[in-house]
Amino acid sequence: MPTLEQTLKDLAPQFERDLCDLLQIPSVSASPAHKGDVRRAATHVLGQFQRMGFTAELVETPGHPIVFATSPPVAGAPTVLVYGHYDVQPADPLHEWVTPPFEPTIREGRVYARGATDDKGQMLTHLKSAEAWMRSAGRVPVNLTYVIEGEEEVGGENLEHFLQSWAPRLKADVAVISDTSQFGPGQPAITHGLRGIVACEVTVRGPRQDLHSGVFGGSICNPANALARLVASLHDASGRVQIPDFYADIPTPTAGERERLRQLPFDEAAYLAEIGVAAPWGEPGFSTLERRWARPTCDVNGLTSGYQGEGPKTIVPAWARAKITCRLVPNQNPERIMASLERHLRSVLPAGVTLDFKAYHGCPGYAFDTDSPYMQAAHRAIARAFGVAPVLIREGGTIPVVESLRRLLGLDTLLLGWGQNTDNLHGPNEHFLLADYHRGIAASAYLWAELAALPTAG
Amino acid sequence: MPTLEQTLKDLAPQFERDLCDLLQIPSVSASPAHKGDVRRAATHVLGQFQRMGFTAELVETPGHPIVFATSPPVAGAPTVLVYGHYDVQPADPLHEWVTPPFEPTIREGRVYARGATDDKGQMLTHLKSAEAWMRSAGRVPVNLTYVIEGEEEVGGENLEHFLQSWAPRLKADVAVISDTSQFGPGQPAITHGLRGIVACEVTVRGPRQDLHSGVFGGSICNPANALARLVASLHDASGRVQIPDFYADIPTPTAGERERLRQLPFDEAAYLAEIGVAAPWGEPGFSTLERRWARPTCDVNGLTSGYQGEGPKTIVPAWARAKITCRLVPNQNPERIMASLERHLRSVLPAGVTLDFKAYHGCPGYAFDTDSPYMQAAHRAIARAFGVAPVLIREGGTIPVVESLRRLLGLDTLLLGWGQNTDNLHGPNEHFLLADYHRGIAASAYLWAELAALPTAG
Repeated sequence: MPTLEQTLKDLAPQFERDLCDLLQIPSVSASPAHKGDVRRAATHVLGQFQRMGFTAELVETPGHPIVFATSPPVAGAPTVLVYGHYDVQPADPLHEWVTPPFEPTIREGRVYARGATDDKGQMLTHLKSAEAWMRSAGRVPVNLTYVIEGEEEVGGENLEHFLQSWAPRLKADVAVISDTSQFGPGQPAITHGLRGIVACEVTVRGPRQDLHSGVFGGSICNPANALARLVASLHDASGRVQIPDFYADIPTPTAGERERLRQLPFDEAAYLAEIGVAAPWGEPGFSTLERRWARPTCDVNGLTSGYQGEGPKTIVPAWARAKITCRLVPNQNPERIMASLERHLRSVLPAGVTLDFKAYHGCPGYAFDTDSPYMQAAHRAIARAFGVAPVLIREGGTIPVVESLRRLLGLDTLLLGWGQNTDNLHGPNEHFLLADYHRGIAASAYLWAELAALPTAG
Repeated sequence: MPTLEQTLKDLAPQFERDLCDLLQIPSVSASPAHKGDVRRAATHVLGQFQRMGFTAELVETPGHPIVFATSPPVAGAPTVLVYGHYDVQPADPLHEWVTPPFEPTIREGRVYARGATDDKGQMLTHLKSAEAWMRSAGRVPVNLTYVIEGEEEVGGENLEHFLQSWAPRLKADVAVISDTSQFGPGQPAITHGLRGIVACEVTVRGPRQDLHSGVFGGSICNPANALARLVASLHDASGRVQIPDFYADIPTPTAGERERLRQLPFDEAAYLAEIGVAAPWGEPGFSTLERRWARPTCDVNGLTSGYQGEGPKTIVPAWARAKITCRLVPNQNPERIMASLERHLRSVLPAGVTLDFKAYHGCPGYAFDTDSPYMQAAHRAIARAFGVAPVLIREGGTIPVVESLRRLLGLDTLLLGWGQNTDNLHGPNEHFLLADYHRGIAASAYLWAELAALPTAG
């Protein structure tokens, strides 16, 4: 039989084809128009499991289906729950893509497509690593249980229900997710903390319809001006969030953690240059890494009101809308923050307009035990595959399932990022370095061996 | 020969057909896609003049053409310059129209179409009144010079250049424009004041492209939040505009004018109910009519940023844009207000974002001599046609040509509104009461006789 290393090498071209096949499917879970495509992506992932000889099925939900799969059982070996998602963010603004978002294209060693890194590419590494074990050793040394969902980008409730009702079949020792990033090029990382989120849509309504700004302007509250007032009230001039009790439950950061962040090789100038911003901005008293990972935020994600075409149009718009998300840190309660946000907005609403507050999903922040033997196993596997020891970091993004896995199944999660946070996840021209794809597959393959060898396993 | 009254009656059906023919042409001057339609509307108006036996031509400009026409000369009679515009506002949001904006439809005595009242319908009254004179008396008793332009809704520069270079052929005693409204149903009005305007587009730019709000949020200035801060800074909480020196040049309103406004039969509750607003809003210390007519404003006309589709999308948008217009009152200088607005916005711009300030057009406010004999002539003509004496009002909208006619040609303008300000001009389902269309034609026809009889004429 070929060695694991040789098998990884031999299968590399096929692994890339498998990725591109999946990236061609526009599985945009937020868009009703793409409902069929989302199912097609699920079916495609199912097929990849079945070709590996795994038991796999589509689990129907009221929304998009979940792909559930298990490796051939290995008695006495630990069980690892692998989570990933096959759905993707909307691809707009389409005109900013160099090549179409659902025609994966390889340029300079990177595959460009919506979902390349978030999360189709990263998720597939844990299928391909198992496939390499099957082909080289005829088995995987641990029991793998896969839950690959299709509603991650819309914060759907269905995964939660699935985890609850399937809990007996989801018993495991630890969970593994690759939906984060490396610390930087050539510097892999293990993520031990995540930010949570609350998301909402706020619509200020004024006159029944758009009105002539000359005939009516000045005598009624303009919903767009009123919305701006509401949004502006969310921060003070220094950048501190003004929602009442927003910071109330957050513990003071420890000196030790602040020092660890300071020692990371973070080049702020390069970070800002990469994203095209001239100066940092944020909550006073915190560094850029702290603002990204360890402090909460309140960001507008979109604004819509009145006339958006070319040239001027002299109207008072009938309504104005903002999409708003707050990123939360551990110990902030999403329900309380959402309620406080709504109360605050209503408290500053001018006369003559009304407010529709539409709450989307919420999820608390998450912190992982950095002393866990699973962390040490992952550390060794990554160091071997990448040739560099991983650093311990936090992540500013939200992975709601991590909180669900802990709450519903009692599982800690190894967050192992293979991509880069400059891969334009959620933006145009999302991409994934193919070398990172293959290193991720190798690290995953080594992780199965490391976990199988743990004294606490089984 | 039939009397003028009989002729007006006989020609009424044809006058309605002429209006509907013009309303079918989508002459949206702001839209490059409608350039051909704008010219088609000009050619159509030209044809209506030619069928009346008037000398008429299209005057080319770098933008949309101007229709220039004159009635058969009458020696010794005064000359009246009639101005109107054949271009219209954009029709969106299209889905809010009950019938398509460019398929004129008559329901309950009203014609519904974009431009029905602003300004195709009102403008045509002065062609149809002359046509009635031609058919009943073989001549119009005054010399009429028509300037019908196609760039009113975009504030183009070309009319200004035309008025300058054609000044020798535009000599007149007074100007007449119907691009305002009656005071209310059954209460005609003469408008003796207009607000001016400055219009601009403000774009706040942050990162090179949309970014993941979890990975980057909190560490860079969000352009949408920053735009909201800029817009919110334009007013204090009470509704007073905060642009420096905004109110500096405005004379205190006289007790006499405030009293005249108070005596107008204005039903504020009905006004608010009509437009669907629960409470008035505006500059403290002024009534709703004063806020609409005699006080300046600062309104957002549109907002655009980031994700505008269904559901949430967790990004920090790359940019955010607001279209902003200020309505000005007499004595405010548009250039100074525009410059002060730009300086103010730059002064409150947070670090890490940049500001593009795109100035559109500007025009000062206008006040008319209420003691003019032309005003008395118009008063009598309107009282005769409508059976009700007109009231003297001001208007919150802007008609830049009125200021140009005064500055370039030394002309005062009779602003005679036949429509209602509830006709949804600039909004969906714009309409014009056909009875008002015909009363406007009659008032215009009587005005030609009143002006011909003025001792100061000729």
